[in-house]
Amino acid sequence: MKIKYDLIKKEKNTNARCGIIHTNYGSYETPMFMPVGTQATVKTLSKEELKDLNSAIILSNTYHLWLRPGVDVINKCGGLHSFMNFDGPILTDSGGFQVFSLAKNKKKDITEEGVHFKSHIDGTPLFLTPELSIEIQNKLDSDIAMSFDECIPYPADYEYAKNSTLRTLRWAKRGKDVFNNERQSLFGIVQGGEYEDLRRLSAIETVKMDFDGYAIGGTSVGEDKTTMYKMIDYVMPHLPENKPRYLMGVGDPIDIIEGVIRGIDMFDCVLPTRIARHGNAFTNKGKINIKNAKYKYDFTPILDNCDCYTCKNYTKAYIRHLIVANEALGQRLLSIHNVRFLIRLTEDLRECIKNNTLLEYKENFIKNYRGENESSN
Amino acid sequence: MKIKYDLIKKEKNTNARCGIIHTNYGSYETPMFMPVGTQATVKTLSKEELKDLNSAIILSNTYHLWLRPGVDVINKCGGLHSFMNFDGPILTDSGGFQVFSLAKNKKKDITEEGVHFKSHIDGTPLFLTPELSIEIQNKLDSDIAMSFDECIPYPADYEYAKNSTLRTLRWAKRGKDVFNNERQSLFGIVQGGEYEDLRRLSAIETVKMDFDGYAIGGTSVGEDKTTMYKMIDYVMPHLPENKPRYLMGVGDPIDIIEGVIRGIDMFDCVLPTRIARHGNAFTNKGKINIKNAKYKYDFTPILDNCDCYTCKNYTKAYIRHLIVANEALGQRLLSIHNVRFLIRLTEDLRECIKNNTLLEYKENFIKNYRGENESSN
Repeated sequence: MKIKYDLIKKEKNTNARCGIIHTNYGSYETPMFMPVGTQATVKTLSKEELKDLNSAIILSNTYHLWLRPGVDVINKCGGLHSFMNFDGPILTDSGGFQVFSLAKNKKKDITEEGVHFKSHIDGTPLFLTPELSIEIQNKLDSDIAMSFDECIPYPADYEYAKNSTLRTLRWAKRGKDVFNNERQSLFGIVQGGEYEDLRRLSAIETVKMDFDGYAIGGTSVGEDKTTMYKMIDYVMPHLPENKPRYLMGVGDPIDIIEGVIRGIDMFDCVLPTRIARHGNAFTNKGKINIKNAKYKYDFTPILDNCDCYTCKNYTKAYIRHLIVANEALGQRLLSIHNVRFLIRLTEDLRECIKNNTLLEYKENFIKNYRGENESSN
Repeated sequence: MKIKYDLIKKEKNTNARCGIIHTNYGSYETPMFMPVGTQATVKTLSKEELKDLNSAIILSNTYHLWLRPGVDVINKCGGLHSFMNFDGPILTDSGGFQVFSLAKNKKKDITEEGVHFKSHIDGTPLFLTPELSIEIQNKLDSDIAMSFDECIPYPADYEYAKNSTLRTLRWAKRGKDVFNNERQSLFGIVQGGEYEDLRRLSAIETVKMDFDGYAIGGTSVGEDKTTMYKMIDYVMPHLPENKPRYLMGVGDPIDIIEGVIRGIDMFDCVLPTRIARHGNAFTNKGKINIKNAKYKYDFTPILDNCDCYTCKNYTKAYIRHLIVANEALGQRLLSIHNVRFLIRLTEDLRECIKNNTLLEYKENFIKNYRGENESSN
């Protein structure tokens, strides 16, 4: 079935809202954070661990799966759920973002027809079109497919942004026209760069095509926070209330809070698993780097009162040892903690929406979170 | 408490025996396979996964822990169990084997006092003695400590082997004299290289010192199978029946069977987790390499009727994809399967001992196992 979105509660003091997304694999509350399983696996985690984290929808990447193991393998296996043996909802992105960020030597040739580029694995010339992206996603049989778009770089001049935004709209139409999977939903993606009129135009025209949900793309690509929040502000008034709204690629805790305040329902980001691989962990005071010498004898958990498996079982000293010794369990324990941190954040935000206390929560969170930030990845 | 060994049943047609080892953390049947957690973690696996595999004692490495995180860290944390949050029995080896196999540039200087060598991590000059090895192990507070020995290379001439064997006996005495941990047991290690008289001498003299158990060291160091089995044969008649017998570093399935037939109770090896990292999996027909193209569309488990988590949940095609894409979950799934394969092998062997069908089992196993061997690591 197509996903359905039920709006449950609007917060009084902001544009934030609670809702429920009904999927082929159960119903889940929003706002939600979606862990990223780039290559048909959320890095280092099992499906049982994801369930323990109270994870709902997970992401996977059309571009990566197209290259490895190949769509044919997954299709012959009966789709991505069967291939991964995962009985929760899966969203696949269109491959557009990876084409722009990963393509070998960043060389690509964007034409009206599609994008010529080279495989980041072996340099093989590839050509991805809106139709092919949708065809692949139809075959992957994810629960939510995404339109093929161009992620506009930041900064980009107005002419570039305008041409790209208009082309992404044409691509969205082409993709929608060939879309052919009754149990799969299709989301449109709003682009427009940093330009208010382009963001508005993109939102209005995308919504006219009547997708099952709407994403905001092209944020978190190097712009400052103020610009990012403006990009969201330009778009939100034009998105319909009865469809989910998804801010792509955003996983910074404060950005999630700011997004929720503006009415975003869904977030995804590789951040929690990526920083885990560098030894970083989220805490209420900011990110800490577990490799720091001061944790060598620290026999307390990463975060007091954290309900994750890692914090209930292991100390900073042990995790530090595992990360320093390059042991896989260390990355796994930090991934568990970091993903749970963001999912619990969205759980907290849902409570705040229900209680109309979101702005107070934000103020407190930011006061603590900014207090200490040991490292970036 | 010291470990205790109860002999339960001898097999009629071989020297094999079933027993129970009582430890500070429960009682476990022998023969057993002990997974290796070199750096205070069995690579890629959690303690819950180890429990699911029906794992009993695990190994950890004195040399590695001495270097990282440092004995002081583990001691201040209350010992290795507390540091790892592991409530099963742990055996620590003495560091002798690692000194000989890992020391930087393989340069070491063996004196009567101990071994001078360089850290494999950063080249720092180190000096390990029998007393220091025992002192470290006492502080790690493992359940079973091992005597500090020299692992004689293969081949080694008679004079070298004799001098080394005699020195290892003196080291064993020195270590035992300083041993000071009431809840920890201490095993002696029989060396002697390939020489019957030296093996016999080493066994007799080691047993005279009255250890809590006896290990056979210096096998699996490059010698052929016939030589390895002879090394065991030379030693076994001289080991007391009321103490456990441990064949160090052996994890090849057929070697385990041959060891059990000769009366061995305990085995350990990095093999199942190491070959997992190279994409290899044990099957009844031999090792397979999951990266092989023929598994690309193979939607069956690694091993039919295998009771491990991996085989109950995932296909060769999915695991192949994970390994090819270098995803940590792939190594974890293969590690689970491979460790379980060896543990289940020992479970089968215990059944055979109880039923006096060990030789029949061996014949069948070898006939199948030799049938196919796709790859080594």
